Amino acid sequence: MSPSPRHLPRGQHLLLDLTGVSPEALKDSTGIECLLREAAEIAGATPLGAQFHRFGEGAGVTGVVLLRESHISIHTWPEHGFAALDIFMCGRTRPEDAARHIVGRFAPARHSVRTLVRG
Amino acid sequence: MSPSPRHLPRGQHLLLDLTGVSPEALKDSTGIECLLREAAEIAGATPLGAQFHRFGEGAGVTGVVLLRESHISIHTWPEHGFAALDIFMCGRTRPEDAARHIVGRFAPARHSVRTLVRG
Repeated sequence: MSPSPRHLPRGQHLLLDLTGVSPEALKDSTGIECLLREAAEIAGATPLGAQFHRFGEGAGVTGVVLLRESHISIHTWPEHGFAALDIFMCGRTRPEDAARHIVGRFAPARHSVRTLVRG
Repeated sequence: MSPSPRHLPRGQHLLLDLTGVSPEALKDSTGIECLLREAAEIAGATPLGAQFHRFGEGAGVTGVVLLRESHISIHTWPEHGFAALDIFMCGRTRPEDAARHIVGRFAPARHSVRTLVRG
């Protein structure tokens, strides 16, 4: 079980804030996990596992998909129509494609993306 | 099982890059998970769960501690003496105390902290 070579630390970290999102979309833990896994694959990254937590019926979700190339996290507040995500990817990946896919699916009224270089 | 009130989305996101860290400290998955849980508590946050992945014997670790107030993640590269963390906390927490604790324990030759406002 020799692991495949790991990417170098150099990477991009995108902080994505979504405002004016449908509350229903922000409560659906399973749908959100599927969306983040899909976004990772679109970006050319490899999911290793995930952990999600629901804050209760009708409340928000907090979760992360761990990647061979780092992670995607999400925290949602349906009562504010708000979600905060971060997409951190190293190696030959396209984190901006993941961000575009996520924004397209949540269809927020407004969003911001801040990109920081890591490593 | 009514959950306690959730924090507002407003929070601070600290990106912490550590350079010149002992490779041994960066391979110790269990020690790192304990350190991040400890840092969360020092910051006044509440861990909900964690997921960690080791890339193989002597290789790096990638992991996250989910918090009621968001998350702390870490990705380590022992072969480069490098670790990238992010500490995202909402509500009445002190993420800078978590960062200080983590830096103190890893004792890097150099480190940088970038703080961004979310929500």
